[in-house]
Amino acid sequence: MTNTVPERSQEPAIDALEPFEVSFPCSHKIHERIEWNGHELLVPKRRIHLSNDDPPVDVYDTSGPQGCDVRQGVPKPRAEWIAKRRATNESGNFSQMHYARRGVVTEEMAYVAAREGVDPEFVRSEIARGRAVLPANVNHPEIEPMIIGTNFLVKINSNIGNSAVTSSIEEEVEKLQRSIRWGADTVMDLSTGDNIHETREHIVRNSPAPIGTVPIYQCLEKVNGKVEDLTIDLFLETLIEQAEQGVDYFTIHAGVLLRYVPLTAKRVTGIVSRGGSIMAKWCLAHHQENFLYTHFERICEVMKKYDVTFSLGDGLRPGSIADANDEAQFGELETLGELTRIAWEHDVQCMIEGPGHVPMHKIKENVEKQMEVCHEAPFYTLGPLTTDIAPGYDHITSAIGAAMIGWFGTAMLCYVTPKEHLGLPNAKDVKDGVIAYKIAAHAADLAKGHPGAQAWDDALSKARFEFRWEDQFNLSLDPVTAREYHDETLPAEGAKVAHFCSMCGPHFCSMKITEDVRKFAKEKGLETEEAIAAGMKEKSTEFTEQGGEIYS
Amino acid sequence: MTNTVPERSQEPAIDALEPFEVSFPCSHKIHERIEWNGHELLVPKRRIHLSNDDPPVDVYDTSGPQGCDVRQGVPKPRAEWIAKRRATNESGNFSQMHYARRGVVTEEMAYVAAREGVDPEFVRSEIARGRAVLPANVNHPEIEPMIIGTNFLVKINSNIGNSAVTSSIEEEVEKLQRSIRWGADTVMDLSTGDNIHETREHIVRNSPAPIGTVPIYQCLEKVNGKVEDLTIDLFLETLIEQAEQGVDYFTIHAGVLLRYVPLTAKRVTGIVSRGGSIMAKWCLAHHQENFLYTHFERICEVMKKYDVTFSLGDGLRPGSIADANDEAQFGELETLGELTRIAWEHDVQCMIEGPGHVPMHKIKENVEKQMEVCHEAPFYTLGPLTTDIAPGYDHITSAIGAAMIGWFGTAMLCYVTPKEHLGLPNAKDVKDGVIAYKIAAHAADLAKGHPGAQAWDDALSKARFEFRWEDQFNLSLDPVTAREYHDETLPAEGAKVAHFCSMCGPHFCSMKITEDVRKFAKEKGLETEEAIAAGMKEKSTEFTEQGGEIYS
Repeated sequence: MTNTVPERSQEPAIDALEPFEVSFPCSHKIHERIEWNGHELLVPKRRIHLSNDDPPVDVYDTSGPQGCDVRQGVPKPRAEWIAKRRATNESGNFSQMHYARRGVVTEEMAYVAAREGVDPEFVRSEIARGRAVLPANVNHPEIEPMIIGTNFLVKINSNIGNSAVTSSIEEEVEKLQRSIRWGADTVMDLSTGDNIHETREHIVRNSPAPIGTVPIYQCLEKVNGKVEDLTIDLFLETLIEQAEQGVDYFTIHAGVLLRYVPLTAKRVTGIVSRGGSIMAKWCLAHHQENFLYTHFERICEVMKKYDVTFSLGDGLRPGSIADANDEAQFGELETLGELTRIAWEHDVQCMIEGPGHVPMHKIKENVEKQMEVCHEAPFYTLGPLTTDIAPGYDHITSAIGAAMIGWFGTAMLCYVTPKEHLGLPNAKDVKDGVIAYKIAAHAADLAKGHPGAQAWDDALSKARFEFRWEDQFNLSLDPVTAREYHDETLPAEGAKVAHFCSMCGPHFCSMKITEDVRKFAKEKGLETEEAIAAGMKEKSTEFTEQGGEIYS
Repeated sequence: MTNTVPERSQEPAIDALEPFEVSFPCSHKIHERIEWNGHELLVPKRRIHLSNDDPPVDVYDTSGPQGCDVRQGVPKPRAEWIAKRRATNESGNFSQMHYARRGVVTEEMAYVAAREGVDPEFVRSEIARGRAVLPANVNHPEIEPMIIGTNFLVKINSNIGNSAVTSSIEEEVEKLQRSIRWGADTVMDLSTGDNIHETREHIVRNSPAPIGTVPIYQCLEKVNGKVEDLTIDLFLETLIEQAEQGVDYFTIHAGVLLRYVPLTAKRVTGIVSRGGSIMAKWCLAHHQENFLYTHFERICEVMKKYDVTFSLGDGLRPGSIADANDEAQFGELETLGELTRIAWEHDVQCMIEGPGHVPMHKIKENVEKQMEVCHEAPFYTLGPLTTDIAPGYDHITSAIGAAMIGWFGTAMLCYVTPKEHLGLPNAKDVKDGVIAYKIAAHAADLAKGHPGAQAWDDALSKARFEFRWEDQFNLSLDPVTAREYHDETLPAEGAKVAHFCSMCGPHFCSMKITEDVRKFAKEKGLETEEAIAAGMKEKSTEFTEQGGEIYS
């Protein structure tokens, strides 16, 4: 057994991220213009143009400005809004919740209202009530604002970040860009290796999506991995360092209380959250209560100044099916509910992290309990994985759980890539993870009956039924892959307008036959059930002879 | 617009299927020996050996005999059982239901009882009641018997088959072998192209899994694609041809009644089942009731003679989210319930096919309605896909629906590959589809609380927690892929025993820290909540000072 770092492998060559237009043929970005408080807001959507006379399909777009110089970062739409706010804010509390509770609809709120197709006042009220968060650090003017809450579209988060073992700054920025290209709504930078500050700076400056971090990781680097040397002062100093850079939400494992730690002793997989295990070790080493808990109000003071949103970490989340919904997990959850109240007393925005590994029949209980004990603060879950037996395919084991938990009310789903439990995701893994979660989130939006969600499905299905192959590809989450799969069997251009495909061939195409059926029925005047019934009556003798056979 | 066949692409070279031992390192096949009615039954399992002192893990095995000559086919374990039965059966009805209802526990029933870990009498009673089917044509002696029913492990089906456009016999047999290697419980041969009889013969002779077909496809070939020329006599002749070869279940679209056809006129995607659209066209062309419905009892006569199981096709299943759970679908379902009763009057085994495309909130209604109107005959669904927007990823959109519908009581899940809607699956697609569905089925078994299902998850999670990397790989559904993914980042052999991995690196490994926590707690006598509480009391002054901060 060894704890030294094994030799690092050659990274497989990663193709550069293709231009936006290549990822999404026949799409282009549009911006809805909104006047608000004297500012012009430009709210992005992606417009997919169709080959027939149907109107184009506009979809939510997270991809951000294209073609910017990575050293310069992306434009700063919020710069003016924030400057104005700085000039007038006397409380020192810049949180969206603070404004919302004072009846102010900020530019960010108006922006997300347009993005979600809802009333700005509704956005304000949800944020004021704590049922939604709008993560937007005042030092992250690059953000295209977005909202996380059970009454809005289900969001997804992608994790990136280097570790001591592998990966570079350029790769991480590209993983960011790849994540938002395919639909990630927020991105967490989980870097733990060298250049942690510089990597983060590049990520924030290039991100139109809110960025989350787990600050305890950097703290641990600062004490050379000695958990027992962690202190609240070091932690607060690190929070300020990251908040100054513009990080939008912090995962903080303040609910890992000393008394919960022994509850994990009999688990199959103990504590699987990195932050959770760090805090558990600290608690035991000092035989003291978690300093993130005891000093929680000092943390709130930092959060409100920058409008950093809490993502209260579930340090005791289950790491296996066997450990799901146990005492340790639910004990911590109650503490997170207590801390939510405290954050809200400070007008600090707050969401709650959730599991993990949960079999399907125990998923709903997670959401119900979280809503109850955390007063409907947005729930943000990792998967959950619905079985442990498929490492290498955990984007699928967890997309199942994610779709369900999203339907039940979870506001944001943290993606899991095929490499989960095995290694760090490469570019392809990031894309696979994001797309699996985009599927889960959209399936949840459909099941929740989110207004407008089904229009996308309907447009694609209509294109499919009408053999508009190009439109079917272009309307899919990943047009290039859809087209490639089609072309593997039928590459000729003729096949793109053919009234059948390679699955069935011309004689067996049900869509083709249905067309014939409809045409035939129309010619014969058999379009309605009544017409059929009338026809049946005429032929009743014949029918009775044959039908009689069944019942005789 | 054209209906001619576009130029066929070059098939990508497909790697030959690797030996069993390569797919599953440290596994070997074992056979449980059972004496029944004077026969020795050898019931297969796959035994996964671990690197520590834990007992090996035995898992359900569908892979069948290895290394057989494709021209010879696989061995015939049922040959003697069937011969004995032929010598004594005077009714001409060889169905397992017929025997079950007469109180006979056949060799097949005893075999599946051992395979599922239940009592043989329970198997008999479930088959007698119609709540489970044991598809096993008397002309398919190669079968390793399996059972499909809501009170057994959830099963999965893989579809293979060439079309007029592409693929060869050798490829199809290899797709069969690949399907069962990764876990397919039954395989449907959906061939529609040339050599349909010969392809099927090779598939049946090489399959230890039940084979299903859709006989109307071959009928349509026989009338050169002219739907209106189809007749019941041609159909019965084709059933006999295929039953003679040993096909174990037939999908028959006898529920597509003339009066339901107009109900599909307003749908977004009309009729998407090939068989359903064929029968709808026939009904309209003749203005007569579906001949499969009117002559259903003649069909039953063929089924009972060979013990072919009905898989009553859902010809009107929804092909899009928009069309889910509509009148056409549920109208047909009621007719399938009526036909189930008729099949059962003939002691013919019967399962019911289901959708298709269904958003999550409408899935449960499908199972409840099917159970009610089809008297708990096993439900066998295609997915369902929970959104339409992800062609290229429909193994994922549908694994979500499949896992849920399996949990709700569906007995068998028909897989969907990434190529669904786009092209014919190649070898990789078949594997990806089967594994996605194995995940869905196992997740359903866990959620249903199937006895023993969780042992597999627990063994893998324990290996993961104890850093037994090799065991973690070997216990996974796809060991080679799991290992490859790990090795991409940390290829050195040392990493296989390292107490951390590439995700977090040595300082941040939660599992490693949990080990430390447990050790530390043990040394300090802090293993229980009580001990912690006692320790806390000693330090109460200190704690109050710090804890007080929160509430002050």
